[in-house]
Amino acid sequence: MSDFFIPKLAVVGVGLIGGSFALALKDAGLVGEIVGIGRGRANLETAREKGIIDAFTHSLAEGVTGADVVFLSTPVQTLSKVAAEVLPHMKAGAILTDGGSVKADVVAAIEPMLPAGIHFVPGHPVAGTEQSGAAAAFATLYRGRRCILTPTPRTDAGALERIKYLWQAAGSEVVVMTPEKHDRILAAISHLPHMVAYALVDAVGKCSGKNENILDFSAGGFRDFTRIASSDPTMWRDIALSNRTALLEVIQNFEKSLAEVKQDIATGNGERLFDFFLRSKQKRDAIL
Amino acid sequence: MSDFFIPKLAVVGVGLIGGSFALALKDAGLVGEIVGIGRGRANLETAREKGIIDAFTHSLAEGVTGADVVFLSTPVQTLSKVAAEVLPHMKAGAILTDGGSVKADVVAAIEPMLPAGIHFVPGHPVAGTEQSGAAAAFATLYRGRRCILTPTPRTDAGALERIKYLWQAAGSEVVVMTPEKHDRILAAISHLPHMVAYALVDAVGKCSGKNENILDFSAGGFRDFTRIASSDPTMWRDIALSNRTALLEVIQNFEKSLAEVKQDIATGNGERLFDFFLRSKQKRDAIL
Repeated sequence: MSDFFIPKLAVVGVGLIGGSFALALKDAGLVGEIVGIGRGRANLETAREKGIIDAFTHSLAEGVTGADVVFLSTPVQTLSKVAAEVLPHMKAGAILTDGGSVKADVVAAIEPMLPAGIHFVPGHPVAGTEQSGAAAAFATLYRGRRCILTPTPRTDAGALERIKYLWQAAGSEVVVMTPEKHDRILAAISHLPHMVAYALVDAVGKCSGKNENILDFSAGGFRDFTRIASSDPTMWRDIALSNRTALLEVIQNFEKSLAEVKQDIATGNGERLFDFFLRSKQKRDAIL
Repeated sequence: MSDFFIPKLAVVGVGLIGGSFALALKDAGLVGEIVGIGRGRANLETAREKGIIDAFTHSLAEGVTGADVVFLSTPVQTLSKVAAEVLPHMKAGAILTDGGSVKADVVAAIEPMLPAGIHFVPGHPVAGTEQSGAAAAFATLYRGRRCILTPTPRTDAGALERIKYLWQAAGSEVVVMTPEKHDRILAAISHLPHMVAYALVDAVGKCSGKNENILDFSAGGFRDFTRIASSDPTMWRDIALSNRTALLEVIQNFEKSLAEVKQDIATGNGERLFDFFLRSKQKRDAIL
């Protein structure tokens, strides 16, 4: 049996992220027992029926007792509160890890609470679909996707290696960086686009006159472009507030870029507009 | 034979838009001869090989002579120039129509040039793919899509009916509105999103530090969201400048919506953020 085998894994929040992590590790033969912890009984029963978890409980204390690894996959703004409740019940040498989309805030809140001998490895698997809940979970969600781990100087090297191994076993490419760098990158490539999509739908809706809804005219392009504005408002409120500093900075960068386009349209500067569009097209094509 | 049969159709610019229009009308049995007019010989030869056109010429004058309907599907900023060249050679009773993405400017430029007895029906089929050229054309491009016709008080009612019939035969739902309303709607649902996508890629690219390219981290969401930033820079420069007034107005609306989001993030107003995201999500879900 591998050195990285986990006799008992506890998953707090058995949704798409937590459920898929459990399924992937089961498929890899890396876990013994999996206990699911959550509030909703129906979701936990679904998870057990799907074979994601072996047992479940509504009690955080009970669920994490004896667990070797505890994975937190609850909404980002609940992570430090949940950590505060589970840490006193974790056994010596156990590892707490998470899947939150924002890292600096979470790390700053959780690290000071760590009892001696309990390790914390902050993480963020960059994956997801529009679905949620245990019913949406599947074992290959993380295959070929990036998982970012954000250790700090306090993070135990052995614990980091162990969590890294789990994500690699789930099929992910693991990237290690500081929490701050993670937040800056995610603000740019994920959080900003969501803010922009929500703002765009709002603005276009407001362009509608009496007796007409401009959105009725939207063709495929608009629908595709604004798909992410259908994302969960609670989740995105939490992410926006948790990653406030980095997000405000990239919003300002974006406002400057758009102001440049606006200025060139207003002054009819076709040459600059063309150059701007071409540069963006080239950058965009490069990530295809 | 239908009253709406076209013995000779001339298509100026045999690309995705013009070529698909020709193919759709051929399939509907509504055209006799189709002459393609353009600059690039290779593209015209492809069009003839694919059966889109029966013959081609590089001469506008020659190509439109004797045509019952002339369809202009060249870039939007060339439309008035091309119209100026073809109008003197069109036969009495013939109809000029176009597929340009911007209407008020084009109508204002072409209407004053119309000789007596030549009709002009401005139009815009709201369809397209990322591909271009005759090789990309297909007969069903317009099926289930909207085609907006933008007549003015000067437009001949019979000519309007005839062009309307053609687009319906191509499978489109035809909507009739003023050029100004068309431009306002398209500025909101199409032109603004393109400006936003170009600006977003620019801004995110600028967030990259030394030795790192943030775009390398972009996951599926960002790729989908910015897909339209891969659109043709020349075409979008032309559209942006042609629809300047309406576009500047919606950019300002969008800036206000984004400023609202930014303000709520800066002040940590979770309740307002949630309401904003929820309203946008509901509007977006309604157009699914």
